[in-house]
Amino acid sequence: MATGGMDEASNMKVILKHYVSGSPQETDMHLTAGTIKLKVPKDSNSIILKNLYLSCDPYMIFKMMKLERQLTDPYVLGSPITGYGVAKVLDSAHPGFAMDDLVWGITGWEEYSLISDPKNFFKIQHTDVPLSYYAGILGMPGITAYIGFYELCAPKKGDYVFVSAACGAVGQLVGQFAKLHGCHVVGSAGSPEKVDILKNKFGFDEAFNYKDEPNFDATLKRHCPEGIDIYFDNVGGKMLDAVLLNLRPHARIAVCGMISQYNREQPDGIQNLSSMVLKEARMQGYLATNYYHLYPKYLEIILPLIKESKVVYVEDVADGLENAPKALVGIFSGRNIGKQVVAVNCL
Amino acid sequence: MATGGMDEASNMKVILKHYVSGSPQETDMHLTAGTIKLKVPKDSNSIILKNLYLSCDPYMIFKMMKLERQLTDPYVLGSPITGYGVAKVLDSAHPGFAMDDLVWGITGWEEYSLISDPKNFFKIQHTDVPLSYYAGILGMPGITAYIGFYELCAPKKGDYVFVSAACGAVGQLVGQFAKLHGCHVVGSAGSPEKVDILKNKFGFDEAFNYKDEPNFDATLKRHCPEGIDIYFDNVGGKMLDAVLLNLRPHARIAVCGMISQYNREQPDGIQNLSSMVLKEARMQGYLATNYYHLYPKYLEIILPLIKESKVVYVEDVADGLENAPKALVGIFSGRNIGKQVVAVNCL
Repeated sequence: MATGGMDEASNMKVILKHYVSGSPQETDMHLTAGTIKLKVPKDSNSIILKNLYLSCDPYMIFKMMKLERQLTDPYVLGSPITGYGVAKVLDSAHPGFAMDDLVWGITGWEEYSLISDPKNFFKIQHTDVPLSYYAGILGMPGITAYIGFYELCAPKKGDYVFVSAACGAVGQLVGQFAKLHGCHVVGSAGSPEKVDILKNKFGFDEAFNYKDEPNFDATLKRHCPEGIDIYFDNVGGKMLDAVLLNLRPHARIAVCGMISQYNREQPDGIQNLSSMVLKEARMQGYLATNYYHLYPKYLEIILPLIKESKVVYVEDVADGLENAPKALVGIFSGRNIGKQVVAVNCL
Repeated sequence: MATGGMDEASNMKVILKHYVSGSPQETDMHLTAGTIKLKVPKDSNSIILKNLYLSCDPYMIFKMMKLERQLTDPYVLGSPITGYGVAKVLDSAHPGFAMDDLVWGITGWEEYSLISDPKNFFKIQHTDVPLSYYAGILGMPGITAYIGFYELCAPKKGDYVFVSAACGAVGQLVGQFAKLHGCHVVGSAGSPEKVDILKNKFGFDEAFNYKDEPNFDATLKRHCPEGIDIYFDNVGGKMLDAVLLNLRPHARIAVCGMISQYNREQPDGIQNLSSMVLKEARMQGYLATNYYHLYPKYLEIILPLIKESKVVYVEDVADGLENAPKALVGIFSGRNIGKQVVAVNCL
């Protein structure tokens, strides 16, 4: 919404009010109105973005906290929080970007963002898919699933694969990749509706609602009676501990997140790591951001799969920046079904 | 001691009286006299061994327990316990072994053993080193150190390496391998004497007595201020949890044992696994027994190192089968200094 001078627009922002401990709440954030010049500064390398979709990702909780051991730079109080987003370039002083380019990368939770150093943005070349996908299957979560499953888990046809948070941004892809690869796939999620989606939309062989299960070890013995060759761990904690009791020899565990633990003062203690020895298991932590050099290869693989409907992607789209805080805090209680994004502006 | 008929000898044995829980005690075992025919049965593939050295290894505790989840076959009550040993062939019906061959493999805790299927025994070709080494540096512990460090940890010159139980059968070798490889090496052990050996005999850059340290995280920050690239984990538990807080990016953790946890009803809960994600760390459990195909390669490397005194090996030799139970239970409290073996018969 252009107001004031020709180049100035009002700019709604999502601000972190204070650092959080435990689960973040909507009230930890507020919306505030500002203005922004929609022209890049002279002698800069910057670009001006109109933000279209914002991605709600688990890692963001670390930036909402101020920890004794700070793992990542915390958000700046009073400034808009940041995260992955899909955006349109309104103006550019950077030779790699031009007006009307579509891009994805780390942007602000606001209507418009001035990005002073856009070198980590990806230009979107394929627009015959939903643009929001670049916050999910075609963005960081997609690469996370691809790298974790194919590069780190070394899957073989017939492997027994278990995925936690299996209906989420990453899990739903891992499950589908595993099915395409000829694996037997079991997933856990947090509601009957999600379990239904796992089985009937994503083609998981088995799925269960972990909230109904008092004893994860018994649950896994029931759903994975042959044991687990590959565990794609999105949650950590008690589920990981139970998985360790159900490993097959030479099992591989990819750990891309431990969302069940992020809002805990005292994380669950993992007691069954000695299974790693006897099962000669491998556990590999990773950050998708360090694998972005493989993004072009991933796109070549995933775009045809999307177009041929061999892989589907479920999104939970919150409408408008005013609903962004609720959407973000919802992912820590599993309120979302599928990848949680926020639609900021319609094109 | 041959008694009775020409082919029959008295045969002292170490018997497990009952399955143990918690730390094994000397009183869980007893010595009993038996007799054995020193001729192999006809139409068999068996060999008769005169046992020379018996190896006390942490895994043996699992065979002394009867667990709800049995991880390995327990010892048979009333029969001699078994373990790695060095022995001389007295008689053989197996085409691969002849009288007077020296061998190492899984034998009985007794003076003489009838091995009905000796296919997993290795023939000892090099006798210009102490024979007891085939229970340690030239046997299973040696391969464990070699595989864990070189094959699984992918060491690079300049890496920061930390080894727990560093004065033990495996740890002392890992530390020396790491120094030969140009790494910076820190070790933990359980007495001032062991710390002295680490620094002054094995050439560790730093070493500490973990029993003096109330806060392993602070200890590691002091001794490994740059963080840890490679952790060779022999103990698990609280030390592993502290190491997780001190990993460098792309750290590798080889887990060949978790001796601190073996005699626990409730293992320590590991709370810091989420560091695996942010540090993109890899943890690999393994069993040396599955790498024995690399034994000839290992021998080619290690024999010259021993002969040129580039690698030294400290053993703690208990004298006589009557001292074997005490030697075995001692390794679970760290009573031994260096590799614990039992000399059964002198040659």
